[in-house]
This record gives sequence, structure tokens and C-alpha cells, in this order.
Amino acid sequence: MSAERIQAVYRIETPLPVERAAAVLAGEQSSGTFVEVPGETDDLRRRYGARVELINPLEPAAAASLPGCRGGVPGGLFNRAQITVSWPVENIGVNLPTLLATVQGNLYELSQLSGIKLLSIALPDSLARHFRGPAFGAEGSRALCGVVKGPMIGTIIKPSIGLSPDQTAELVRTLVEAGIDFIKDDELLANPPHSPFKQRVDAVMQVINEHAHRTGRKVMVAFNLTDEFDAMQRNYDHLLAAGGTCAMLSVNHVGLSATKAICDRGQLAIHAHRNGFGMMNRHPMLGMEFPAYQTIWRLAGVDQLHVNGIANKFWEPDDHVVRSIEACLAPMNGLKRLLPVISSGQTGLQAPETYRRTQTIEVLYQAGGGIMAHPLGPAAGVAALRQAWQAAVSGITLDEHAREHVELRGQLKKFGK
Amino acid sequence: MSAERIQAVYRIETPLPVERAAAVLAGEQSSGTFVEVPGETDDLRRRYGARVELINPLEPAAAASLPGCRGGVPGGLFNRAQITVSWPVENIGVNLPTLLATVQGNLYELSQLSGIKLLSIALPDSLARHFRGPAFGAEGSRALCGVVKGPMIGTIIKPSIGLSPDQTAELVRTLVEAGIDFIKDDELLANPPHSPFKQRVDAVMQVINEHAHRTGRKVMVAFNLTDEFDAMQRNYDHLLAAGGTCAMLSVNHVGLSATKAICDRGQLAIHAHRNGFGMMNRHPMLGMEFPAYQTIWRLAGVDQLHVNGIANKFWEPDDHVVRSIEACLAPMNGLKRLLPVISSGQTGLQAPETYRRTQTIEVLYQAGGGIMAHPLGPAAGVAALRQAWQAAVSGITLDEHAREHVELRGQLKKFGK
Repeated sequence: MSAERIQAVYRIETPLPVERAAAVLAGEQSSGTFVEVPGETDDLRRRYGARVELINPLEPAAAASLPGCRGGVPGGLFNRAQITVSWPVENIGVNLPTLLATVQGNLYELSQLSGIKLLSIALPDSLARHFRGPAFGAEGSRALCGVVKGPMIGTIIKPSIGLSPDQTAELVRTLVEAGIDFIKDDELLANPPHSPFKQRVDAVMQVINEHAHRTGRKVMVAFNLTDEFDAMQRNYDHLLAAGGTCAMLSVNHVGLSATKAICDRGQLAIHAHRNGFGMMNRHPMLGMEFPAYQTIWRLAGVDQLHVNGIANKFWEPDDHVVRSIEACLAPMNGLKRLLPVISSGQTGLQAPETYRRTQTIEVLYQAGGGIMAHPLGPAAGVAALRQAWQAAVSGITLDEHAREHVELRGQLKKFGK
Repeated sequence: MSAERIQAVYRIETPLPVERAAAVLAGEQSSGTFVEVPGETDDLRRRYGARVELINPLEPAAAASLPGCRGGVPGGLFNRAQITVSWPVENIGVNLPTLLATVQGNLYELSQLSGIKLLSIALPDSLARHFRGPAFGAEGSRALCGVVKGPMIGTIIKPSIGLSPDQTAELVRTLVEAGIDFIKDDELLANPPHSPFKQRVDAVMQVINEHAHRTGRKVMVAFNLTDEFDAMQRNYDHLLAAGGTCAMLSVNHVGLSATKAICDRGQLAIHAHRNGFGMMNRHPMLGMEFPAYQTIWRLAGVDQLHVNGIANKFWEPDDHVVRSIEACLAPMNGLKRLLPVISSGQTGLQAPETYRRTQTIEVLYQAGGGIMAHPLGPAAGVAALRQAWQAAVSGITLDEHAREHVELRGQLKKFGK
């Protein structure tokens, strides 16, 4: 029976006893409302009710994390716990958006809670087998661009916005000649008048295809497909016909149903940009943590997912980043693994710590300024990143490795402390 | 020039001088990265750069609202301000998901900020005219179900989950005979094995169509269409063929591109359920406020949008609810007004305060338990809600009005203090 249930784990905070708050949460998200109504029979509750499976108390807090909670005793503490709640598969069927409406939905609104964060979601195989998941995943993405050793090395077209298709193609030429594996549009550039998607694809793919013809290796370019639904379908066709291998989506803004429809086509690797995720994740007692987040998008079928990076320029601590990389690569219902996309202020100097903590090279390592701003030029920037990873995997310090590698030496000089 | 710019207003908090933090925000969301790169010319920055238009300082805070910020002086205050930032329309084109990626995107990740909330978004008419917006809106929704006086009175099928199509149709029969204007599925029920969408539509629409044939008035039923993209399109066709007038979407989980594609069809009124919005909105220094939120969904073309309710069972204060109702009904680039959907613990007792503060009856007033749990039955529940609104609009107290209205009297007895 419990094998046929969906499970979600939450961290909650409440002025009430945690058992009571957990029961409210389970009731709100299944058969209940705020008064008893005819028709909510014991049998119906038994068959469709959500169930609190486990409560692990945590250290209580002195103050409420979020406004608007009610109940409890004046001056009392705010109880915290990690709880597991389960739902019958039967409540939802094969319906990813409604799965989300069930495991989060109105929960963030509950006045019985002063904090709630969704930590993880687990599906029984009987439900998960209805989802293909990533068509390419980590291994397939590497294979598509012919990377056999070390992490995929990637970069972002900068300036983010303002280049014409021809200017972009020129930059791409520099980058592919520099030996890069992967290039992506910035999330701010999708399909604007000064760089229409199709024209950009035509200009850039000419460079990519020529280079592939000459070298036998097709550099992967994640063109930012993010748009309204019909435009995405038309542009997908165009990109495919031009020989493209990858499209990027700002998944939080495209949304789940359209992203899954794009992924369902399965002809291009889908690079999922998570911009906006900070809104869901930055507060420790509100929203959703990455392990839950990657479950949703893996079910939808994206292949590559952003995880931020060690010592990033953003707010996120390294522990989060490590956990995110691990979550992307962890087994899940037999679906393919996601390729973790490491980015944000990366220069190669973070390679040793990244490898030390994750013990994997199954990543796409992205540097923007970290490549283009190398004092010896972009080719040296790419080489320096590969050298940094070689050192990391071999257990040699960057300084030691740099003695024999001028590009890494330049990188350390530019970005090192 | 500034007429051709998109504007967004934020509340920010930062350990840095607010001018500096605002400049970082504008840079991150247009041409900048963390180091200068070749190609970011002054001309490019001038044409495509985001611009800080206005900074209004607010009272500083003693502690950081969000973790992970850097900079500032040890023990220093956290500066707060309301700022306005603008972007050239040219950066985005007609592309709603990328508009969102631009006005929020990675902003929540910035370590220079310890808090950021998007308050509102304004588009120039030259851009907004590319969006039809709501096909029906507030007035069209009323017209579709023939409500000419007072607010639309609606209810939710309860129990939320577990009823078969036939049981649902029986409940709908009771409700339409009780004189209801509007009925909706719960957001937890979409297309599960025990109540497949098409079978539920067939069973329920038979009741609705018979009643319409007899009375000349077609009660609006918002069937929960939330699903994967192809399923939604097929089910939309089916619902339309069965004579339906409205479909519901859990818009945060369906997502923007698919919701807009559904709205673009324009044959059914779209009832937007905002479940999950608490994650974006509950913390005062993180996420997005309702005025910005309704702008996005109005551009996408939904017709009806949830606003919670006065004295709701959830966490949200009344001031928010009032502001949300006003935002739905405010003029915006000549697009139709959204119908505010009032719900959550509503019993009619909140009608006087709702009317006093908003001075409008252009709402859908939803009560679930508030109708079904009326001691004299659902018909009395519906009548009591109408009576409560009559009293509210006439400026009579509920107690006074209840003297001559047995249904309202029953409601006050059941739910009154």
C-alpha cells in the first residue's frame, strides 16, 4: 500500500504542537476544509486522505520565521520538525502540475504554520514509470558534444544582451576555436528584435557546423528557446533543422506544462536555467529545497539543470551546491541522471574544492567572465579551466600544476587571491 | 524614450548603500557580469542597460531578512529602499516568460541584497498592445453566467477529492437548484483515475445544461483543467463541446507559457487558482507582491484570479486582500479587468467589511463550507450569502437584515461570533 503513495518531506515551524500542525497540513491538502461537510465519510478519508508518516522534532525557535501565524501560547516557542506526509497515487494520476499543487499548493498560506519548506519528494515506481524523464541526461549530453574526459567546459555569451546575430556568431567562432565544449545564451536574451531567435540560430549554427565538419566535434549551443508556446515549437523545429543539439529554457518562467511538452519531443537536449529559484529557496523556512526541485524537473524531462557553484558570486553556501550536484546525479526511479550545470563567478579556481566534495567530473562547468577575461584570451581561458580540473582530479594543487601550464598561471594571476 | 521602457518597482534591503545595491541589480539584469568583458561598450550599455529611475529610502532594519548577504560594515544597519528600475522594450520583445526572467531572474540570488520583493510592473502601451489579455474578464464572466445584480456567488466541490463523476454531478444538482452562480473543482482534483476529467465534464454538464434549458441561466463551472499540455488541449475541446463556459488552472504549476496558450484560445473563461502564491508572497522581503503577480497573469489572459478574502482562514492580512481586489480591477493598458475571486473561510459574514473597503460588487464570492454546512441546507447557504451582500451594499448591519431573513439568521447562528 505505502509503495503506491507519493511522499513529501517538509521542515515546518509552528506555534502549535507539531502533531497538530502536521494534521492540519495533511487535511488541507486532501479531503478537508475548515468545517465538516456532508460527504466526507470515514471511507473517503481512508481512501484519499493524506497521512502523516513521520515526525522528527527539531530544535524550536524563539521567534516566528514568517508573519501571520496564529495559535499557541503567548510568549511560547515555535516548534520545528521534519515531517513526512504521504498521498495515494490515486488522488492525482499522471499529472505533474497537480502533483505540485498537492505537495505544495496552499500549504504556504496556512496560519497554523510560521514556516514551511518542502525538502524532497519521492514517487513510487508505478507512477514514475509514466515519465520518460531526461531524454539525454548527463551521459547523453556529454556524448552529444563528444566530451570523453573531464567535465564539459562551457561558457555564456557576454554581454548578456545587445549583440546582433552576426556579432554573436563572431564570438562563437572565437569560442569554438578556443576549444570550448558548450556555449549558452544568457537568460536575458531569448528572442528580441535585435537578435531574433531564428537569425541567431542561422548565424551561429553556420559557425558550429563548419567547425564540426572540420574537426568532427559539434560544440553544443544552448539557444535560449524561452518564449510563448507556439513560438517555442516553431523555433525548436528551426533549431533542429539547422543542426542544433540543445535548447535552453528559463524553466520557472516557461512553467511546468510547457517545459514538459518541449522535453517530450526528445530531439534536443534541454538546458534548464533555474533563474528565479532564489525566490523559492533563499529563506530557510519558506519554499522548496533543491532536492525537491530537481525531482520535478527531472520528471518533466530536462537534461541539464543549474546548481550554482562553489564560492559563487551569489548568496548560496557551498553545502547547498554540493547537495544540489549530488541530487542531480542520484538515482531516481530508474530515470536518467541530470547533468549539474555549475556556474556563477566560476574561474577554475573552484575546481579542486568542487571535485574534493563531489568526487565527480559528471558536470558542465561554466565560466563566463572566467574565460573571456583571461589575459591571454579565450583559448587560454578554456585551457586554464581544463588544467584546473586536471589538477583537481589528480590531487595536485593549482599552484603546482600552474608551474608547467602557462594558461592556468595566467588564470591564477588574474583571479587568484 | 522612457515611454518605451518596462518599469519594475522593488523593495530592497542591503548592507550596502542603496544606490550601490540598486546599480548591481540593474547591471545583473542587463548587460553586466562580475568582471568587465570585451564587447560591453558604452554604446551597448546605453542602448540595452537597465536604469535605476528612482530610489526612495525606507526605515533601515537592524538585522538581515535573508541569509547570505555580504558587504557592509560589521554591526551596521541594513538599508531599505523602494526603487524603480527600467529596461528598454527592445531587450525582450513580446515574450512574457523572458519579461519575468528579466524583472526577477537571478535577483533573488544577489549577495549584495538581504531582501528583495518585486512590488509592481508597468509596460508601455506599445508593448502591452501585443497582448489581448482576458478574453472575458470581470464583466464577461458575469455576462457568461447571467449575473446582473450583486457579486457572483460561487462554491467549491467538497470533499475536495474522492467523489466519483456521478457523485459530483449529484452535488452539482443540489447546488444549481440552490441557486448558485458558479461552482469550481478543488485544485487537488484535476484528472485522477477515480474522476477522469472527461467523465466528470459529461456527468456535470448534463445537469448544468438541463438546468440552463429549464431556467435560461447557465451556471458557470470551473472544471480543473490543470494537466500536461496535450491533455489540457484535448480536455479543453471536450469541455467546449459539452457546453462548458469555464476552465480552471493552477497557474503557478501549469506555468506561464502553457497558461497563455490555453488563454489564447479565448473560448472559455479561465479561472486562475493561485495555489503556491504564498511561497512567493508570505515573506515581506522576498518574492513578489500581488500587484506584480496580477499584471503577469492579466497579460497572459486569465479572466478570474484568486485574491484570498477578508478575515480568511489563511495567514494573509486584510490590507493585502483589499489591495489585491483593487489591483485586479484597476485599469491596465486598456486590457479587460480581472474578476477577483474571493475565497478561504468565507461565510458571508465578511461581506460588509469587504464591500466597505472595496466599494465594489465586481467579485466572485466563494464559500465552500460556508454554503454546504448551512443548518438549513445549501439553498439556504446561497440565499444567506446574497442576503449578506444585500445588507453590505445597503449599509444595513447583518444582524438587522437577519431579522427578516431566516437564511442569514441561520448563517449568523452557525458562523457568527
